[in-house]
Amino acid sequence: METTKYLLNETALPKRWYNIQADLPSPAPPYLNPGTMEPLGPEDLAPLFPMELIMQEVSQDRYIDIPQEVLEIYRLWRPTPLYRAHGLEAAIGTRSRIFYKYEGVSPAGSHKPNTSVAQAFYNKKEGRTRIATETGAGQWGSALAFACELMGLECMVYMVRVSYEQKPFRRSMIHTWGAEVVASPSDTTNTGRAILENHPEMNSGSLGIAISEAVEDAANRDDTAYSLGSVLNHVLMHQTVIGEEAIEQMKMAGAYPDVVIGCVGGGSNFAGIAFPFMRDKIAGKEIDFLAVEPAACPTLTHGIYTYDYGDTAKLAPVAAMHTLGHDFVPESIHAGGLRYHGMAPLVSHALQLGLIRAEAYLQNDIFASAITFARSEGIIPAPESAHAIHGAITTAKKADEEGVEKTILFNLSGHGHFDMAAYDNYLAGKLVDVAFDEAQMGRALKAIESLPKPA
Amino acid sequence: METTKYLLNETALPKRWYNIQADLPSPAPPYLNPGTMEPLGPEDLAPLFPMELIMQEVSQDRYIDIPQEVLEIYRLWRPTPLYRAHGLEAAIGTRSRIFYKYEGVSPAGSHKPNTSVAQAFYNKKEGRTRIATETGAGQWGSALAFACELMGLECMVYMVRVSYEQKPFRRSMIHTWGAEVVASPSDTTNTGRAILENHPEMNSGSLGIAISEAVEDAANRDDTAYSLGSVLNHVLMHQTVIGEEAIEQMKMAGAYPDVVIGCVGGGSNFAGIAFPFMRDKIAGKEIDFLAVEPAACPTLTHGIYTYDYGDTAKLAPVAAMHTLGHDFVPESIHAGGLRYHGMAPLVSHALQLGLIRAEAYLQNDIFASAITFARSEGIIPAPESAHAIHGAITTAKKADEEGVEKTILFNLSGHGHFDMAAYDNYLAGKLVDVAFDEAQMGRALKAIESLPKPA
Repeated sequence: METTKYLLNETALPKRWYNIQADLPSPAPPYLNPGTMEPLGPEDLAPLFPMELIMQEVSQDRYIDIPQEVLEIYRLWRPTPLYRAHGLEAAIGTRSRIFYKYEGVSPAGSHKPNTSVAQAFYNKKEGRTRIATETGAGQWGSALAFACELMGLECMVYMVRVSYEQKPFRRSMIHTWGAEVVASPSDTTNTGRAILENHPEMNSGSLGIAISEAVEDAANRDDTAYSLGSVLNHVLMHQTVIGEEAIEQMKMAGAYPDVVIGCVGGGSNFAGIAFPFMRDKIAGKEIDFLAVEPAACPTLTHGIYTYDYGDTAKLAPVAAMHTLGHDFVPESIHAGGLRYHGMAPLVSHALQLGLIRAEAYLQNDIFASAITFARSEGIIPAPESAHAIHGAITTAKKADEEGVEKTILFNLSGHGHFDMAAYDNYLAGKLVDVAFDEAQMGRALKAIESLPKPA
Repeated sequence: METTKYLLNETALPKRWYNIQADLPSPAPPYLNPGTMEPLGPEDLAPLFPMELIMQEVSQDRYIDIPQEVLEIYRLWRPTPLYRAHGLEAAIGTRSRIFYKYEGVSPAGSHKPNTSVAQAFYNKKEGRTRIATETGAGQWGSALAFACELMGLECMVYMVRVSYEQKPFRRSMIHTWGAEVVASPSDTTNTGRAILENHPEMNSGSLGIAISEAVEDAANRDDTAYSLGSVLNHVLMHQTVIGEEAIEQMKMAGAYPDVVIGCVGGGSNFAGIAFPFMRDKIAGKEIDFLAVEPAACPTLTHGIYTYDYGDTAKLAPVAAMHTLGHDFVPESIHAGGLRYHGMAPLVSHALQLGLIRAEAYLQNDIFASAITFARSEGIIPAPESAHAIHGAITTAKKADEEGVEKTILFNLSGHGHFDMAAYDNYLAGKLVDVAFDEAQMGRALKAIESLPKPA
């Protein structure tokens, strides 16, 4: 086995985030107020977010400086390594070159702290002392707990009940970092109580319900802000440190990617690696951007591009995005971080503009690729990140069939040390493949029929 | 929060291991054959180990070149970072400077791959195609599975049954890396069958039984070698990459440690960070080396220095070491990797020579320090590694009381992502403190009374 790792000197840690809004050929449609369906102004968001993040959300500046306090914490694990996947290339016998950026070296084990640290910082700066958020499998909740603890803020996490009960170790991590976590739906919010009383069939919870609880919590307390781990423009922008570093590391490798690949749930890790390279595509360079999603929640490949609610109780901003309908609850698959009904507006907009494409895969195929990767590269990937691996393998095999050699770059967004039960299920042949079906499509169409369409 | 991280350029990855046997003022006593109690020759070990590792075990060469193939795999995660613990210093209000080396960035999450990769390499080079080993909580078993998979060897892990059943995720990791793992005592060896039939009270297993099973497996098959994750001289030597890197990183920091701290179970991670600095102590420099062990298994602080068996079935070499008796089964504590009745002969010898000292702590104190560290430095430590943290905190506080400022370096040997249940228990107030007691001491003395004493 040969290892080629491209490490940046610490002085090469990016000093600013890249804001793709400055370069898009047309702007993404604005958010709407969920009550009035009129475009949102900064004042509508002020109860939920600090003003600096609201300004980042709509900024047209190409670059935004990363505050020194955020850089200090980034430096705990950044710059992250970029590897040439010699082992994987040999294992699948491809003639293409495969590179991957590895974000699993953060203390939370994923890319999420890139934005949680920034969000905690701006909230603290503007006097908030507490942040409320939702989490599915717990990757985001633990990353925010980590950031809040280091910034000296309180943190309240609404965790989807089924994960709270079945995946206790991310919950333990949240506790270890000093945050509070409750199972959602909870009896601490109106949203939660209403569901517990009137919809016992929804007691196992969903991301949409947990978002509603966190938004309600934040809206009702002056000391508390709301925080989202993906989807929003400023969250995607914070993740561009991944791609900015990768650009420099690919230069070290003397290579430039023909294809850039990431998995998509809300869209932030994909945007993090893709957007900085997308500057070049917008300027005319030919690059293929591939967003990989689960067949059980295929937002980009099967969703409808429309305005839709981001949460169950319709408290969060309404966004123009690819959606499977705001009441869609995906089948329980092991890539819990990819089970969101919607998609980041900027990723959706990029698909509309033809800047990216998407593919959806079944989870047994994903885990087969995860095992191939673990056994050839040594790193056990998170099931979410394994979607990107499978995308890279699929792309390389296709290139081999076509007799071409490609340079492929994907984002390995996190390690799978909290997901070993999923590997057990796969190795025991117990994983069930589920794909979005026509009945679900019918319900999705019905859920969004009365909502406005983006211009 | 301020972060100071000392990163070595990849070209600074050590090219050779440091062998402290070349510099010790007197040699450690030789191993004895468990059958004859006569000193062992290389030929006695040949059924179990490849000749190159046997030669390393007794080598008097100061340095041994690290093979290129091993370096290639080390480069997946090495050089590892060294941090100044600004956050921890502030949290405990010390005037001392605390540094830590972080080995949790390896794909297995600990320092163990530093030796598993080397052992797999030499076995492959000499034509073995399969390695058998034991594992307690699974840290070593997973590290060897990782190395064997990358080297193309089969791997068979005998895992202490109580861990096999209660800590399934390291077992899953072993499977993911393609190795075989059975609960020990198993019905696949004579040792295992004898215990299952005649000693039902021992069915939950112990490290001593699992070692016996792995040794028997290896001795009975020409294609199979035995591998140990700690204790032996060559294993400790492989870990010296930790200290060799740390020396360069402390130079970058413009500092030299007054105190070097590591946790000890078998002794390898402590030796890994301590031995390279110990050259200077042997040459006359004043350095305090502190080995930290659990009060439930206090081998260095309470054990007897004598020849003792390394395993239950008395198949493994007999070593001069500090021991609590070869049939000692420590209370079930959460630092499973520190529950070994004996100690590395070289670490024991260093204690005899006055080169190091040892302290033993209770697990509630250990976890209190682990939480302090997680909340101030951001990294959740393995319970084993948290012993070193607690040693550092204790040392710093004592220095403050004495009005002196010290430079403290400790080894953070792994992350705690597989140990979150232990954190849950601690935070819920459910951890029980257990210390080695007089009755256990009596049994230990009886167990070793007929064994020869080192000269």
